[in-house]
Amino acid sequence: MASSRVLNFGAGPSALPASVLEKAAEGLLNFNGTGIGIAEISHRSKEFTAFVANLEFLIRTQLDVPPTHAILFTQGGGSAQFSATVLNLLARHRLLHPHLSDDERVMDYVVTGSWSEKAAEEAKRMGGSRVNVAVDSRKYSKDGKSFDNIPPHTEYAFSPDPALIYYCENETVDGVEFSHKDADATSFPYHLLDKGALLPLVADYSSSFMCRPIPHLSDHAVIFAGAQKNIGPAGLTILIVRQDCIVDVDAAAQLGATPIPLTMSYKTLFDSKSLYNTPSVLPIYIAGLVLEHLAELGGLKYYEQTNRKKAEKVYEAVRKGEEKAVLQRKVQDGAGSWMNVVFSVLGDGAEQRFIEGAEKEDMKGLKGHRSVGGIRVSLYNAITEADTDKLIGYIEKFVLAESNTTS
Amino acid sequence: MASSRVLNFGAGPSALPASVLEKAAEGLLNFNGTGIGIAEISHRSKEFTAFVANLEFLIRTQLDVPPTHAILFTQGGGSAQFSATVLNLLARHRLLHPHLSDDERVMDYVVTGSWSEKAAEEAKRMGGSRVNVAVDSRKYSKDGKSFDNIPPHTEYAFSPDPALIYYCENETVDGVEFSHKDADATSFPYHLLDKGALLPLVADYSSSFMCRPIPHLSDHAVIFAGAQKNIGPAGLTILIVRQDCIVDVDAAAQLGATPIPLTMSYKTLFDSKSLYNTPSVLPIYIAGLVLEHLAELGGLKYYEQTNRKKAEKVYEAVRKGEEKAVLQRKVQDGAGSWMNVVFSVLGDGAEQRFIEGAEKEDMKGLKGHRSVGGIRVSLYNAITEADTDKLIGYIEKFVLAESNTTS
Ligand SMILES: Cc1ncc(COP(=O)(O)O)c(C=O)c1O
Ligand SMILES: Cc1ncc(COP(=O)(O)O)c(C=O)c1O
Repeated sequence: MASSRVLNFGAGPSALPASVLEKAAEGLLNFNGTGIGIAEISHRSKEFTAFVANLEFLIRTQLDVPPTHAILFTQGGGSAQFSATVLNLLARHRLLHPHLSDDERVMDYVVTGSWSEKAAEEAKRMGGSRVNVAVDSRKYSKDGKSFDNIPPHTEYAFSPDPALIYYCENETVDGVEFSHKDADATSFPYHLLDKGALLPLVADYSSSFMCRPIPHLSDHAVIFAGAQKNIGPAGLTILIVRQDCIVDVDAAAQLGATPIPLTMSYKTLFDSKSLYNTPSVLPIYIAGLVLEHLAELGGLKYYEQTNRKKAEKVYEAVRKGEEKAVLQRKVQDGAGSWMNVVFSVLGDGAEQRFIEGAEKEDMKGLKGHRSVGGIRVSLYNAITEADTDKLIGYIEKFVLAESNTTS
Repeated sequence: MASSRVLNFGAGPSALPASVLEKAAEGLLNFNGTGIGIAEISHRSKEFTAFVANLEFLIRTQLDVPPTHAILFTQGGGSAQFSATVLNLLARHRLLHPHLSDDERVMDYVVTGSWSEKAAEEAKRMGGSRVNVAVDSRKYSKDGKSFDNIPPHTEYAFSPDPALIYYCENETVDGVEFSHKDADATSFPYHLLDKGALLPLVADYSSSFMCRPIPHLSDHAVIFAGAQKNIGPAGLTILIVRQDCIVDVDAAAQLGATPIPLTMSYKTLFDSKSLYNTPSVLPIYIAGLVLEHLAELGGLKYYEQTNRKKAEKVYEAVRKGEEKAVLQRKVQDGAGSWMNVVFSVLGDGAEQRFIEGAEKEDMKGLKGHRSVGGIRVSLYNAITEADTDKLIGYIEKFVLAESNTTS
């Protein structure tokens, strides 16, 4: 059955290792010898709670999460966290500074793509505070309207003592990502932030979680990620939350903060070890298997290397396509994502030809997001170097054929 | 592998049909011949959106859901709906009656067990309105403190024009359920409600969804259910929402209603056909397979018959155990759940003996909820009559052995 599988370069839900899926298929009928399938077993059984504890362990050790931070599991995806981060961190700020007016309470948003833009919009919707767009990268784009870059460090305008500072590490739609090297012009400007304070720094890692180490992890208040890119099926959201951000939300509501649905409160999740209510057991199970697989292959060090190589190879193939005037990169230098490489195919109907040709060779999921078009190659962990080479072979062949036609 | 499976009488997550799990195991590697596993495929692919549309169709036809009501899918479980029903229906009420004070805006809660009690508590937490406990069944219990009954119809005190009227159809922990026959003293008192109005009637069907038809379905504003009892794995929540309850929540917030996280807004779900953000594809998939299986077996009519028979048999076995002073029913006449039969085993350490003996015969999940103790037999759809007979054989044997010991 595994042999009939195609290569899936989709942006999420996305490819998972076949060996993991085979193991998961067994677990569906019989989980760890219990005689009960993983989708059927009580989430309070000792077998399942041990599995969750091990999932936490796998994340904590591989990402090097310090004891100052809790690892929590929930449902609702990244989108639910757009609201939850706001509600929890406004509650925290309310407890720290009960007497500020809504206008004095500020949330800083770094907008570098459509996901951080959506998050900022949700922050405005939820209200109870002013949203300051610390920077909007469209101002620095080639065409004045696209998310195609990481802005220069000089352009960020952070507020003093904000309730939160928000960024999206990897913009899945636009293919824009912060560099992970501090010295780079396109890194996130940690050095501009107030190091004296417990930073209310929030990062959306939905599409880059567990693909390489997280820089400055311990400076973060909240890191969140849906599982459905690098580590599992949709339906599981992973949170890394610094302990001071796990606050008594009801006390904050007494002081005027917006009440938080109980399932969205970090305190509820923390107090119950992520088992306040029934979690999505099946996604949790598969994520656990993926992370074990990841550890066996060599952990994040291995993935960082492999992912760098995969991305470099694809960018190089696109560069060669540019030379032949067949392909065009969409993202400016230094801002190109490792996980989602986006480019255009030049010429009438050429994009469609590119996609159809790939599908004939059993490679799917290459269509860019409907809001921006073009081609998007997603290179999550489950895509191997060999898979990438197959795609590159196709790109080269396509570029050759097109340049012959057009010349 | 299926042969090594044990019987799982757990209350949720709970047993699923082995044939469905076998099919799902295939889909994990290759979904409907796409060459991509179900956990890996884009939720916007035509294959997956068609699957979701069919899931809706299966529910709509089998439950006879009229076009006045939308069927929506979301994440977060029943617990998230404790908050979402309040937020959405308070928004609706705010738009209908913008000028009421918080104290004039009332939500009626029918409390017949620990789940409806939790829901009422969450309504108080979310604020913006007064919570009226229309009835609390503990007042009518044998010991003055247990949820062991459905109160007499004369005891319900509903408010005029409330923002919502809430009840839990089947109380999973306490084993208490409303009768589905209008003439019964233990039915939900629909006849007391204001039929002139569009009733803001909310029902938690988490543990009885798709086990038999839903009486007065079209009178309901919202019916919700987590999938993890009768129809699938945890991680999927099903909503049936009357169109007038899908309101512009932002307009309501402008008028002073509490802002609603976008992923909790019924309007967001409705406008996007439940695909505003990445849904939990795998639980949706398995729920679809279960509902097809259900349809093949004869649909709800078949399950209603079977479930009645299963429950009657177990209650009868417990009654016989009562005669021998070995077992004791916990729930008063007419209020016993079909899905969760609860009883005590009398005598020192007898409950533990009952559970261990059952496990030796490969029957698991019989321990009562930690808050109430005792034995709980969950008889969801996937438990067949033959499975039930096996358990009854065990109960009879146990009763005989114990009565020999004690006499
Ligand atoms: C960076 C990023 N953030 C947030 C989301 C939203 O995630 P979800 O669909 O799980 O709500 C996505 C989805 O692709 C994403 O890529
Ligand atoms: C009747 C009822 N309502 C609500 C819930 C809560 O559901 P969840 O755990 O999915 O939040 C349950 C869980 O068992 C239940 O039985």
